[in-house]
Amino acid sequence: MPREITAFSNPLIKRVRELRDKRHRREQRQFLAEGLRILTEARETGRLPQTLFYAAASAGHPLVNALSIDVEAAGGESIQTTPDILSKLSGKDNPQAVVGVFDEFASSLDALERGKADIWLVAERLRDPGNLGTILRTGDAVGAGGLILIGESVDPFSVEAVRASMGALFTVPVVQAEWSEFVPWLRSGPGQLVGLSLDTESDYRAARYASPTFLLTGNEAQGMPPNYAAECDLLVKIPMLGKADSLNAAVATAVMAYEVLAQRRG
Amino acid sequence: MPREITAFSNPLIKRVRELRDKRHRREQRQFLAEGLRILTEARETGRLPQTLFYAAASAGHPLVNALSIDVEAAGGESIQTTPDILSKLSGKDNPQAVVGVFDEFASSLDALERGKADIWLVAERLRDPGNLGTILRTGDAVGAGGLILIGESVDPFSVEAVRASMGALFTVPVVQAEWSEFVPWLRSGPGQLVGLSLDTESDYRAARYASPTFLLTGNEAQGMPPNYAAECDLLVKIPMLGKADSLNAAVATAVMAYEVLAQRRG
Repeated sequence: MPREITAFSNPLIKRVRELRDKRHRREQRQFLAEGLRILTEARETGRLPQTLFYAAASAGHPLVNALSIDVEAAGGESIQTTPDILSKLSGKDNPQAVVGVFDEFASSLDALERGKADIWLVAERLRDPGNLGTILRTGDAVGAGGLILIGESVDPFSVEAVRASMGALFTVPVVQAEWSEFVPWLRSGPGQLVGLSLDTESDYRAARYASPTFLLTGNEAQGMPPNYAAECDLLVKIPMLGKADSLNAAVATAVMAYEVLAQRRG
Repeated sequence: MPREITAFSNPLIKRVRELRDKRHRREQRQFLAEGLRILTEARETGRLPQTLFYAAASAGHPLVNALSIDVEAAGGESIQTTPDILSKLSGKDNPQAVVGVFDEFASSLDALERGKADIWLVAERLRDPGNLGTILRTGDAVGAGGLILIGESVDPFSVEAVRASMGALFTVPVVQAEWSEFVPWLRSGPGQLVGLSLDTESDYRAARYASPTFLLTGNEAQGMPPNYAAECDLLVKIPMLGKADSLNAAVATAVMAYEVLAQRRG
C-alpha cells in the first residue's frame, strides 16, 4: 500500500480527482470532503474516510495524526502527499491540509424517525450546491431531524455542497425522494407541512407551528408548483419591504426555521 | 458605432471580458451585470448600462427592447451579439439573454442618511462574493439603509456578488470603509451597534433593539476581532443546537435582521 504519493500521474490521484465529477461519484459511490475542520467533524460523528490525503507539512498536527490513526485502524489508507497534488484534488489554489475520500451514505424516508425532532427541512428541486450546504448547516444549528430533497436536486455530495455544509453533511441526515413518495410518507404520521409563498396574507411570525414542522422551500428560480402549495397545511410569507420579490432560498429557510425554533423554545 | 458583433476577436469583447477580473474593474471603473431580471431592476432604479449586449434571439423581447431604447437614449450603446459571445462575457455555459457594462458607483459614509432606515448592515472582512450578494438581497428585503463593508472585503462589483444580489446591488447603497473611519461616523449620531458573538448569554430574541440598529457581522472564518466586539453597544447570540459553532454569515445576518424588523413592526 502506498504511504506517500508525489506523482500527479499516480492512478489513485487520477481516480480521486474524478470524484469532483458527478458521474464518477455515482459510479464509484464515493465523494470528497476537504479541510481539517470538516474531517474532524466527520470523525466525531463516526464517519471516517476510506482514504485520507494530507500534506507533508501537516504530518505533525495532532488532529491530522488522530485522523490518520483512526483511518488506518478502520482499515482505510492514509497517504502523505504534496501541496500541488492536494490542490489538484480539491480544485483550489490554496489547498486544505487534508482531503478525504468517503463512501457515500444515504438515508431513506423510512429510516427517518420523525418524532426525534421538532423541525424537518424539505427542499424542492434545489439547484445551487452552496444553498444546499448552507441549508444543511442551518439544519444542524436548529436541530433539524434531516433534509429531504424533493425531485431533481443538486448533488448533496458535490464538493461545493460538502464545503458549504461545513461538516453538517455528516450530522444532518439527507434523503432524496420524489414528491409522490414524500406525501404518502408525510401523511402516514404526525407532521405539519408549511410552505413559503407569496400568495398568502399569513405572516410567518403570526402563524403557529405544530410539531413536527416540515418546512418546504421551493426551487430558487420558480418557487414551488401549485400542487405542492395546495398540499401544504399552512402557507406563510416573509415580509419583503424592498424591490425584490424573494429571498435567497437558504436565507428564507433559515429565517423560517429560527422562527419555528423560537416558538418551540417558548 | 457597432450595432452587431459576431467575432470573438473584437477588441470591445476582449475589454468587456476583462471586467470579470478585479484589476481590470479597478482600472476601467466599470463592472458587469447579467440577466434580464437584474438589468430590468437596475433600469427601474434609474441605472442603465453604458453598453448592453443581447442575443439576436432576444431581440423581440419587450423588456430587452425597453432596455435597448433607454440605453441608447441615455447615450449608451446597444449591441446584438451571439450566444457564444454572451457565454464568453458571462463565463457561463448557459448565458443570460443580456449582459450590461455599468459604470461603478460607490457611496461614502458621509452620503448615508442614517435616519432614513431602522436597519443598517455592517460586515467585517467579508470574503465570499456569494455571501456579499446574498446579504445585499436580504438588505433590500428588510428595508436596510445600506451595507457598510469594513476592512479588506471581497469586491461588491464582482460578477458573483452582483449575481447573488439579484439586483439588490442597484437598490441598496454599499460603502467601503475602514473601522477607524466607521466608528467616529457611527458615534456622530444616533445608532446602536449590535454584534453577533459566541461569548454572550444574551439571546437575539430576548434583546431589544434601538433604531437605527447597525448589525455587525464578523468575518466568515474568524468572527470579529475583540476590539470590534468591545465597541458594540450590545452583543447577542443566535442559539446553535447542533455540532457546528457558527452559521453561514449571510444566514446569521438575515436571522438577526428579520428579528430587528419584527420588533420594529410591532
